[in-house]
Amino acid sequence: MSLLLPPDAQDLLFREARTANTFTDEPVSDAQLRAVHDLVKYGPTAFNLAPLRTVLVRSTEARARLVPHMDPGNDTKTAAAPLVAILATDCEFHEETSRLFPHAPGVRDAYFAERPVREDSARFNGALQCAYFIVGLRAAGLAAGPMTGFDHEGVRKEFLDGDHLPLMVVNIGRPGPEAWHPRLPRLPYDEVVTTV
Amino acid sequence: MSLLLPPDAQDLLFREARTANTFTDEPVSDAQLRAVHDLVKYGPTAFNLAPLRTVLVRSTEARARLVPHMDPGNDTKTAAAPLVAILATDCEFHEETSRLFPHAPGVRDAYFAERPVREDSARFNGALQCAYFIVGLRAAGLAAGPMTGFDHEGVRKEFLDGDHLPLMVVNIGRPGPEAWHPRLPRLPYDEVVTTV
Repeated sequence: MSLLLPPDAQDLLFREARTANTFTDEPVSDAQLRAVHDLVKYGPTAFNLAPLRTVLVRSTEARARLVPHMDPGNDTKTAAAPLVAILATDCEFHEETSRLFPHAPGVRDAYFAERPVREDSARFNGALQCAYFIVGLRAAGLAAGPMTGFDHEGVRKEFLDGDHLPLMVVNIGRPGPEAWHPRLPRLPYDEVVTTV
Repeated sequence: MSLLLPPDAQDLLFREARTANTFTDEPVSDAQLRAVHDLVKYGPTAFNLAPLRTVLVRSTEARARLVPHMDPGNDTKTAAAPLVAILATDCEFHEETSRLFPHAPGVRDAYFAERPVREDSARFNGALQCAYFIVGLRAAGLAAGPMTGFDHEGVRKEFLDGDHLPLMVVNIGRPGPEAWHPRLPRLPYDEVVTTV
């Protein structure tokens, strides 16, 4: 059974794409990031409320504030990457319901009146969008280095407000020398899929 | 700025792809699901521990057990779809560390000794894999109808054990008549991306 997606595109997005640990010096432009967003903004989220918010860390000053919050090992990668993005989720995403789900704005209060419910939804749907973003970077010919190993509360205090929670920090660029190790194994289909 | 991914593939995965609410009667084969898995298994997760576990609901008996747990509106779609998958996450994913991260099996105890930490990681990384799965279905020419609107504890008790938490139920098939409404708006780039 073959896929409809052509093999070259399969390779670009999944089979040959790898998490990069080193990058070349080639800069990553805002135009590239806009092209990625223009593609992955269509990825589905609950009630189309797409809670992901992104902070692009471009200045030397901001990079210097971010790096100390990264776990050992991640810090040096984040210090060296051409561009770093903080992917955060907005726990007040429901405020956009009338714009994003205009035919049924009542879902705002029917589903999202309580902050704990909103936070769970923001974390889950924001995570979906993190994955779309990684796929989108690859679609742009870029390599991603996604990391969850950092001081989340430290990054929140440094870069976000109380309504936003960091989910992932992503190093972005063209893969450099020895950018990755050999592929690790995956669990076989029959161990992760059951049928009832 | 154009993407490296060809326009037809952009359309297949994101621009023209839509959440389907109706499906044709065409069955979805195990071979198709295996091809999807063989592609999206490469999507990155923390420490390569890929916690997603999938239950394919194929039998009439199992479908009858699932439908009552779906929220109103979702229930009729789930009753009618050619195939339904329960995407769950395994909170004991760390037990596979020696197989999936064999060069550093110590991360099992260093990071994942405590259940609450494992559950957070399982939910986040499982959500990433839900998104890869949706993209993978589209790569196979299938439409996805992902839903989080169901009785999660009811589905867990009916289909899973205490180590597994349901994240999403996905209706799967070829889009049927009036499968979707017109595209909803997205927030513009400058509202969701800031630069520091």
